[in-house]
Amino acid sequence: MKAFVTGAAGFIGSNLVDRLLALGHEVTGYDNFSTGVESNLAPASAHPKFRLVRGDVLDLPALERAMQSHDTVFHLAANADVRFGTEHPRRDLEQNTIATFNVLEAMRLTGAKRIAFSSTGSIYGEPEVFPTPEHAPFPVQTSLYGASKLAGEGLIQAYAEGFGIRGFVFRFVSILGERYSHGHVVDFYRQLCEHPGKLHILGDGHQKKSYLYVQDCVAAMLLALEQAPDRLVNIFNLGTDEYCEVRDSAAWICARMGVNPEISFGGGTRGWIGDSPFIFLDTARIRALGWKPALTIRQSVETTIDYLLPR
Amino acid sequence: MKAFVTGAAGFIGSNLVDRLLALGHEVTGYDNFSTGVESNLAPASAHPKFRLVRGDVLDLPALERAMQSHDTVFHLAANADVRFGTEHPRRDLEQNTIATFNVLEAMRLTGAKRIAFSSTGSIYGEPEVFPTPEHAPFPVQTSLYGASKLAGEGLIQAYAEGFGIRGFVFRFVSILGERYSHGHVVDFYRQLCEHPGKLHILGDGHQKKSYLYVQDCVAAMLLALEQAPDRLVNIFNLGTDEYCEVRDSAAWICARMGVNPEISFGGGTRGWIGDSPFIFLDTARIRALGWKPALTIRQSVETTIDYLLPR
Repeated sequence: MKAFVTGAAGFIGSNLVDRLLALGHEVTGYDNFSTGVESNLAPASAHPKFRLVRGDVLDLPALERAMQSHDTVFHLAANADVRFGTEHPRRDLEQNTIATFNVLEAMRLTGAKRIAFSSTGSIYGEPEVFPTPEHAPFPVQTSLYGASKLAGEGLIQAYAEGFGIRGFVFRFVSILGERYSHGHVVDFYRQLCEHPGKLHILGDGHQKKSYLYVQDCVAAMLLALEQAPDRLVNIFNLGTDEYCEVRDSAAWICARMGVNPEISFGGGTRGWIGDSPFIFLDTARIRALGWKPALTIRQSVETTIDYLLPR
Repeated sequence: MKAFVTGAAGFIGSNLVDRLLALGHEVTGYDNFSTGVESNLAPASAHPKFRLVRGDVLDLPALERAMQSHDTVFHLAANADVRFGTEHPRRDLEQNTIATFNVLEAMRLTGAKRIAFSSTGSIYGEPEVFPTPEHAPFPVQTSLYGASKLAGEGLIQAYAEGFGIRGFVFRFVSILGERYSHGHVVDFYRQLCEHPGKLHILGDGHQKKSYLYVQDCVAAMLLALEQAPDRLVNIFNLGTDEYCEVRDSAAWICARMGVNPEISFGGGTRGWIGDSPFIFLDTARIRALGWKPALTIRQSVETTIDYLLPR
């Protein structure tokens, strides 16, 4: 395929780029480097089938120019910050909803025919069914991030129906692994680097969360593109078939770092406004295509700490 | 209450304004008159408790100025055109999604505490459950209009959670009645005025649709604001407990107009891309508050034709 990857210099984007190149595909990476990191693309940059375009997904003419002659778009560029949504309400609208609209418009204008979209388990709000399947009851959003991804999904579905684009929507749990830079594992890691004797956990630590290793995530996306039913829109939850409490992951992180801090808690069942106290997705649909994750949640956390620790 | 009504000069907006004034409320109408009609506000304009502000919901500073000192916002301004969405993909994004974001931002900035939002049964896409309840399985969007309203709902829910605004989301079927100006009843009426001997129907005419009389719609919204459970977000389907085929409504329209045209069909199960072949909403939730519609679908169609016919 000729793949176009937005957010190519990001955590998941750059891992995807490496995998696509390893499989022999041509890849154009598109990134504005607002949160993407140059060094994430160091391996790709040496590859003859990789091309990097510096640009913003909010710049539709630039996006359209860069997207010419690609068949498959992996749209990973996003504001990935859930926690601070209420401090800058416009950011999710612009960087997630309007950006996705622009990607779809560029596809319509250039004739690109498939989009794979990084959606989120946050889109289920606070579900009543666990593990939560893709056809869960119509959810109520609890975060601006979830709302902006919901809007992105809706746009992809409408473009699929209206313009014959094929949409692959992936609702991720939190992703961990090499190049991970954002979220509670790195927050805990940084706290413990600074003060190995103290760890502060938001909420009561009993929030139940799910994680997936980035290589498992990338493998699932690529498998779905190959194997999914011949429908305009395919939606897949991506996660493991387990969850952990924040207290568990904190303990694994401490053990891996060889520290034994005094732990304090912010209290309450949620770490912040819009924090979901329980995320556990039903992944039967992607498993039915033959996918299964290589790493457990604990192994993902440990692999991430190994990556973060100085070599 | 001190009510702020966007789209006040529109079909539903102006009927709502009249009702609010009749109930003794203070009302500010906000409209850019892009599709709103001056004459719709003729009765309201004579009322001492009514104030009109000409402005665009995409102009956030103007919206914020106009919204000062209101407690309840009825957000009815929208692009209401479902059928031609694919001819101008940006319109739904701007006039429905971004506009709703602006309304919420203006509420956050001015301290307005309640929003009533005109969403749509189109948001269910092509559902598998009939009548379709509010907690139907997570839908797949089939129109840019539905996608833009889904995005609006998500934003309202996230603002409710994030900023303590109370959200009332109303998923309308097609609304009929006085000041109706847009949709298949007026399309058929206009065709028959021009050529009383011919009527062309898009699709095969077996599309199953639901309609609700505008006064019933307004009454349901106001009842919900009074009686709904004390939750941050309340979602209500609004419709009758029946549906009709497009062929049925065509026959009622012809009879009311006293014409007997030759009818031709576009063919296919859908009238256009994104046309839902079956809309029938479960309205048990709003009925449980004590609401029921005064008019049947047939009566709504006939009332609308009576309104359209020259007096």
